Amino acid sequence: MNKTYLLPLAAVATAALLPTMGFAQEAEAPPAVSEELVWMFNSLLFLIGGFLVFFMAAGFAMLEGGLVRSKNVTMQMTKNVGLFSLAAIMYWLVGYNLMYPLGDWAIEGYFSGLFPSWGVLEPVYLNDMGLEAADDAGYASTGSDFIFQLMFCAATASIVSGALAERIKLWPFLIFVIVLTGFIYPLTASWQWGGGWLSEAGFSDFAGSTVVHACGAAAALAGAIVLGPRLGKYKDGKVNPMPGSNLALATLGMFILWLGWFGFNGGSQLAMGSAADIADVSRIFSNTNMAAAAGAVSALILTQLFYGKVDLTMVLNGALAGLVSITAEPLAPSLGLALIIGAIGGLIVVLTVPMLDKLKIDDVVGAIPVHGFAGIWGTLAVVLTGGYHGEAALGTQILGMVAIIGTTFVLSLIVWFILKAVMGIRVSEEAELEGLDVSELGMEAYPDFTKG
Amino acid sequence: MNKTYLLPLAAVATAALLPTMGFAQEAEAPPAVSEELVWMFNSLLFLIGGFLVFFMAAGFAMLEGGLVRSKNVTMQMTKNVGLFSLAAIMYWLVGYNLMYPLGDWAIEGYFSGLFPSWGVLEPVYLNDMGLEAADDAGYASTGSDFIFQLMFCAATASIVSGALAERIKLWPFLIFVIVLTGFIYPLTASWQWGGGWLSEAGFSDFAGSTVVHACGAAAALAGAIVLGPRLGKYKDGKVNPMPGSNLALATLGMFILWLGWFGFNGGSQLAMGSAADIADVSRIFSNTNMAAAAGAVSALILTQLFYGKVDLTMVLNGALAGLVSITAEPLAPSLGLALIIGAIGGLIVVLTVPMLDKLKIDDVVGAIPVHGFAGIWGTLAVVLTGGYHGEAALGTQILGMVAIIGTTFVLSLIVWFILKAVMGIRVSEEAELEGLDVSELGMEAYPDFTKG
Amino acid sequence: MNKTYLLPLAAVATAALLPTMGFAQEAEAPPAVSEELVWMFNSLLFLIGGFLVFFMAAGFAMLEGGLVRSKNVTMQMTKNVGLFSLAAIMYWLVGYNLMYPLGDWAIEGYFSGLFPSWGVLEPVYLNDMGLEAADDAGYASTGSDFIFQLMFCAATASIVSGALAERIKLWPFLIFVIVLTGFIYPLTASWQWGGGWLSEAGFSDFAGSTVVHACGAAAALAGAIVLGPRLGKYKDGKVNPMPGSNLALATLGMFILWLGWFGFNGGSQLAMGSAADIADVSRIFSNTNMAAAAGAVSALILTQLFYGKVDLTMVLNGALAGLVSITAEPLAPSLGLALIIGAIGGLIVVLTVPMLDKLKIDDVVGAIPVHGFAGIWGTLAVVLTGGYHGEAALGTQILGMVAIIGTTFVLSLIVWFILKAVMGIRVSEEAELEGLDVSELGMEAYPDFTKG
Repeated sequence: MNKTYLLPLAAVATAALLPTMGFAQEAEAPPAVSEELVWMFNSLLFLIGGFLVFFMAAGFAMLEGGLVRSKNVTMQMTKNVGLFSLAAIMYWLVGYNLMYPLGDWAIEGYFSGLFPSWGVLEPVYLNDMGLEAADDAGYASTGSDFIFQLMFCAATASIVSGALAERIKLWPFLIFVIVLTGFIYPLTASWQWGGGWLSEAGFSDFAGSTVVHACGAAAALAGAIVLGPRLGKYKDGKVNPMPGSNLALATLGMFILWLGWFGFNGGSQLAMGSAADIADVSRIFSNTNMAAAAGAVSALILTQLFYGKVDLTMVLNGALAGLVSITAEPLAPSLGLALIIGAIGGLIVVLTVPMLDKLKIDDVVGAIPVHGFAGIWGTLAVVLTGGYHGEAALGTQILGMVAIIGTTFVLSLIVWFILKAVMGIRVSEEAELEGLDVSELGMEAYPDFTKG
Repeated sequence: MNKTYLLPLAAVATAALLPTMGFAQEAEAPPAVSEELVWMFNSLLFLIGGFLVFFMAAGFAMLEGGLVRSKNVTMQMTKNVGLFSLAAIMYWLVGYNLMYPLGDWAIEGYFSGLFPSWGVLEPVYLNDMGLEAADDAGYASTGSDFIFQLMFCAATASIVSGALAERIKLWPFLIFVIVLTGFIYPLTASWQWGGGWLSEAGFSDFAGSTVVHACGAAAALAGAIVLGPRLGKYKDGKVNPMPGSNLALATLGMFILWLGWFGFNGGSQLAMGSAADIADVSRIFSNTNMAAAAGAVSALILTQLFYGKVDLTMVLNGALAGLVSITAEPLAPSLGLALIIGAIGGLIVVLTVPMLDKLKIDDVVGAIPVHGFAGIWGTLAVVLTGGYHGEAALGTQILGMVAIIGTTFVLSLIVWFILKAVMGIRVSEEAELEGLDVSELGMEAYPDFTKG
Repeated sequence: MNKTYLLPLAAVATAALLPTMGFAQEAEAPPAVSEELVWMFNSLLFLIGGFLVFFMAAGFAMLEGGLVRSKNVTMQMTKNVGLFSLAAIMYWLVGYNLMYPLGDWAIEGYFSGLFPSWGVLEPVYLNDMGLEAADDAGYASTGSDFIFQLMFCAATASIVSGALAERIKLWPFLIFVIVLTGFIYPLTASWQWGGGWLSEAGFSDFAGSTVVHACGAAAALAGAIVLGPRLGKYKDGKVNPMPGSNLALATLGMFILWLGWFGFNGGSQLAMGSAADIADVSRIFSNTNMAAAAGAVSALILTQLFYGKVDLTMVLNGALAGLVSITAEPLAPSLGLALIIGAIGGLIVVLTVPMLDKLKIDDVVGAIPVHGFAGIWGTLAVVLTGGYHGEAALGTQILGMVAIIGTTFVLSLIVWFILKAVMGIRVSEEAELEGLDVSELGMEAYPDFTKG
């Protein structure tokens, strides 16, 4: 999603390859796709990508709502609606301009008349109807870019909510979301996608295996450490399984996430105003789908081999890990390589979910393996193809991951500790045992059904 | 969605603003976007908007299915599938031509060979393959317009089904839907979007805060009054809570509605065949999302303050109220103003849900506050910006609301009274207590689970 | 979805009808839509259609998960995720090139360097970034075509999983999916959509009433016969109803399928690079929606008349049968005829579901009536309009159905018998009574709720 790099590349690709396609491209003729049409197609890509990635908020909610116990479902729904809504506000109020301080798309603030020098912290203001004065004529409408980028920011926060489910208080969680979506994510994402030092160093992360997914997982890991495991999860050296209450809902959530990922990765092409760009988006769709399928099949086979029984929750997380793995580079691999990348993502989930349990880090839905470990794998796997610039190097990829994951982890740890000290982040033991729905919210998710 | 007004405006905006964007627009050069491409982009907007708004039918079904008790879920599903299907047939048979009697898009009837002079009641017939002769070359394909407008008509009926849940008989409800979608909605909507007297008077309602949402709420209010509250809902001066049976499903429904609203409001731009139009659609996406987020956060904070506990159903309805509030004017506000408009929508829901209960009007899912009261607020809020024409006046906005809400309410009341007199609209006391699923349909929604 | 035929037709339609639309089309002027733009619009149609049809995988999963008993839901989810993932891999590894052996879109294999002459079995390799050398400049990007066609292949397998639910073992089912999606479907589909003998004979099946739906139903029927009915389903000459466990989920599944069908049928226009093509896509959207609505209303009225009570599962299947019925020809009918075609689809479901039970063929979700019998009806109904070429004849339609359904049925029967002989396809009696979730997977879908 680096706005600076991709466009020239696409133009080069178009110029180089169009003749082989047989499109009429004589020097005297008017351009086949006018500058205005390019801008329109690019904006349309962001709008379609935007609503697809938006729907991932529902996917996360359903996945998490299906994987927590029924006594915590109302709380999990509340957190998911709340976190998306707060992310939408914070990314406008601070995040967007903080993340893209230098581009044409960093535009004047809504309150700038009142507060003359907010600088990069000025809230985004889509100022004119019709065309927006601050728009970059070579890119896309600010509104379409804003809505698309916002969804990525919100996804980062969604990752956190699953890992910390069933024991964290509502308001400290939402305050963390405010900090994460307003400041931490925009800061680290800016290093790569805001034209910052990581993109200059050559770090390559097409749609965010590290920038979004491992970032969210790092914030989740910090939270899980500070928060501690659920009561009774690790007792007498044993891991006590706490099965999810609604696997149909969790499966729905996985499918919605898979659907949204077409927008997540496809939209990150950032352009579809030429035949070459739309061919790339098509290729990204195909690779994304393949990696997800391979992740699911990988977990299907491996759980059968390891445990003698297929484990549906692993299969769901395997598909998601495949998706996360291909996200750092969904364009350059062939379909065969996408299959291998996704399958290894599935393997990672099957191996690392038990590993976290050994470390007594309680990640309710497996968010850290899926988004963190598979995200790291995906970021490393860019080296297999060299990425879309053909220049990704192992050292730079590691540098980028250490910078973003490390910074997010440390900042998150600080915020979690402050929240713990100031207001407490964990519900009481009684509340946890009773379930957060009744104790914290006074509202059961499934009040008509007796509990087993 | 007024087809007459927006297109010239967009053209003006393009002409005025394009030079500032740097697009080549010299007099001698061919147009950057040909007339055929404009028509294609506009049609594509309606197709994308159409499937997004279609999905709102599923959103309403899930929201309502989650908010009724488990003994009435099969009935609520049946009503939702039935109402959408009947709306699709009635809007074809009568509604579409009744709503747009004067435009190029009112086209010859399917049965016109048999019945020479059906006039505006002729069922819509998309007559030719390829291009349709009756199409307006400056607008979009008739089929795309038809499918888009149909979804708005169906949404009006969906609003009614939630409010009257858990006690209304199936067939009288479906007969009301036939009248509402075939006659009442097309009539009142025609006043505004069919080039009728309200649009001439200057009433401004971009995507239907009043035309769709308050109209549906008025029909629902009439029904709720004639039908009376559920047994035991108001007893001994107390409001007896009847909690919804599946809050995960209700949350899913809310997210689906939010998703669909990008099509609902974005598609109501009615054009995306120029850079200016697609910039407007982008802006509408951003404002719509912001208002929803603000409505949810508003309800989140207010229920914490008022009741000491966050109320998830209020948060869900808060988001929806934010969406309804911005629907009358999703283009003109800045993001900051969209936040304020949506947040007030959330406030309205938190305040008016208990108010309806005091009046002993039993609205099972809160449809009247969400679609009615927030719809009124949204229609008034157009005055804050003047709307997309910059001319919306308080008096005209009130006139429009009184006309549409009043007419819908009175006509609905008449229909409900006739239905009550002729066939009865309410199930027996025994049936209501047993639940409509078993008593009316002989089929439980969740037969495997014991009820608490 | 026959790539050879539709494009010239669309071009003819454009040439013939454009003057009546008033678009400027003078001989000297540059084309209104350049060749590159046509290619871009076509590819965009496949991408949008692709993600919509992808989501049908979730729709099938939810429909089936809602219609099986709660003790088999985890297994049904596992099968649905597994079958889609395996279809995605097999269609790449074998199916796509097997199905389209002659076109420009059959491109070099991934392993071709290693194995010089895989021929049509070469796995698809989307070889270059930017434009792909093997692409047909007059059609669309290979990646977009691949992802779209893949979803049709996967849908065929989804149809099978519902019919055989609640008693089939996981792995034999998945092995059957591998054969079906890698070999059987690509073979028979190739006869029609790969430019094979059926398309040359004049068989007409626009989006796959026979090629996809009846094919899937034939494979399911073969499986249901070999597998036998569920224990206790037919006892003492009586049909023992085994009600679905979650009708809200089943309704959601139906709505998702309806949504996906806009992509299924609309995308099968295979082109939207001209005003004429997008008008056709619009018309297809309208007809598809109408047929679904008519199927639902038909089942609503008929179950009321036949049984005195509306049957929601019949209404859901009625809508799906309406969709299947219109799929063979969603373009040529008027809206009125689409209504009649869809309504007859609903009638077929209501009549044939009990008929299968009389034959003691246990089809858990009604997949054979919906996809098979309504698919046959839809294929015959093409004769009513003559199809989009105006030349469909009854004899040819019957020939096509006999060829595809017969071949699929016989090949499937052979595969099922081999699987039965080699590894067994049915779980033990104890496992079936206990439920496949606990016995086969060791994981309940709804562990928190006590079972009735």
